Amino acid sequence: MAKKTIIVFSNDLDKVMAAFIIANGALAMGDEVTLFFTFWGLNVLRKEESVPVKKGFLEKMFGWMMPRGAGRLGLSKMNFGGLGAKMMQHMMKQKNVNTLPELIQSAQALGVNIVACTMSMDVMGITKEELIEGIDFAGVATYLGHADEANVNLFI
Amino acid sequence: MAKKTIIVFSNDLDKVMAAFIIANGALAMGDEVTLFFTFWGLNVLRKEESVPVKKGFLEKMFGWMMPRGAGRLGLSKMNFGGLGAKMMQHMMKQKNVNTLPELIQSAQALGVNIVACTMSMDVMGITKEELIEGIDFAGVATYLGHADEANVNLFI
Amino acid sequence: MAKKTIIVFSNDLDKVMAAFIIANGALAMGDEVTLFFTFWGLNVLRKEESVPVKKGFLEKMFGWMMPRGAGRLGLSKMNFGGLGAKMMQHMMKQKNVNTLPELIQSAQALGVNIVACTMSMDVMGITKEELIEGIDFAGVATYLGHADEANVNLFI
Repeated sequence: MAKKTIIVFSNDLDKVMAAFIIANGALAMGDEVTLFFTFWGLNVLRKEESVPVKKGFLEKMFGWMMPRGAGRLGLSKMNFGGLGAKMMQHMMKQKNVNTLPELIQSAQALGVNIVACTMSMDVMGITKEELIEGIDFAGVATYLGHADEANVNLFI
Repeated sequence: MAKKTIIVFSNDLDKVMAAFIIANGALAMGDEVTLFFTFWGLNVLRKEESVPVKKGFLEKMFGWMMPRGAGRLGLSKMNFGGLGAKMMQHMMKQKNVNTLPELIQSAQALGVNIVACTMSMDVMGITKEELIEGIDFAGVATYLGHADEANVNLFI
Repeated sequence: MAKKTIIVFSNDLDKVMAAFIIANGALAMGDEVTLFFTFWGLNVLRKEESVPVKKGFLEKMFGWMMPRGAGRLGLSKMNFGGLGAKMMQHMMKQKNVNTLPELIQSAQALGVNIVACTMSMDVMGITKEELIEGIDFAGVATYLGHADEANVNLFI
């Protein structure tokens, strides 16, 4: 058994899917996997429904403009205002590839360790109530602790 | 001798060149290097000429819109519809830096292990006949097997 | 004590901040950290003031179009011609998060090893005089030497 960590910095559908496909592969092989969500990556963990939280003006604006949850992400290329993401998801469904929300569910069922970066949450004004259940909250020292024990560390 | 792996997720000329410059450096030092091409990265491995393959409509469209081969990639920044890539390649030629197709050739001559991600191929409808010769085909478990034995693992 | 390396390929404010936040965290924990700046990442190391250097036409053009120094970077997403970066920096100041120039200063005070990729400098026509003080100059072999001794290697 080995440990793996992935920093999920991006909120591009394609990149986040890659992170979870690697994570699920490693979990299935008995590895311990920590996904550290920071910056744009935090959007992947946002609940789909709007959560009423008091925020400053800029925090509200960023909140509105960023995608809310794993079901609303766009592609890093050829997104065309969301059309590309829809087409890609359609092609994946045809080939029986799991959707991102399904990949997240199975990762959680396999015991993935999901950590939301508290410093990014603070900067972007994202609160714990706005994020999905079953995740941890920590900073860079916790990430480094996991990475020191892992044999594969990726930044996506 | 050590092992290295790089996941080539991107098809940006600059990023793919970085991957091959690192790979060639490691190969020259006697390392074993595995490059795992997935998602957009698959385009790097496409043959330059069109290969007649039966495809669905969306697969055809994606095939048309994505660059065919290492000679047709754009920059991740300042590409300006391909002009930036042309300028960058011109500057590289002036400084005697190898082109990407040359870097790929020397990597193959040095024994690089190129793997195309079969799951991405399936999703995007890319077939083996459309990809260059001398490469392997495998999934995430194979990647993880290599990564477990490597001392440097990058995601580009 | 362990070693860490990060290839800073990007010049996006958000990604470069992530690199330095990880680096500073590791340095604070007593690690040895090498940041290898290549391609667009070189712009992070440029002095803010213009340095008179003889260059070819394309090198000059690239020099003009690329951001000069850590104080002028844009976001990888939602930059809106620099407005997004300004808003993000404003939000960071409100939360007492260090600015990128401050993060670089503290990394240097903590003994970070900053290396500028000489091959990229050559291609882009960037000279040593144009880059900040206190950094090293080397190529991919030096990077690989550091990476072989490190237990965490990231590409950002």
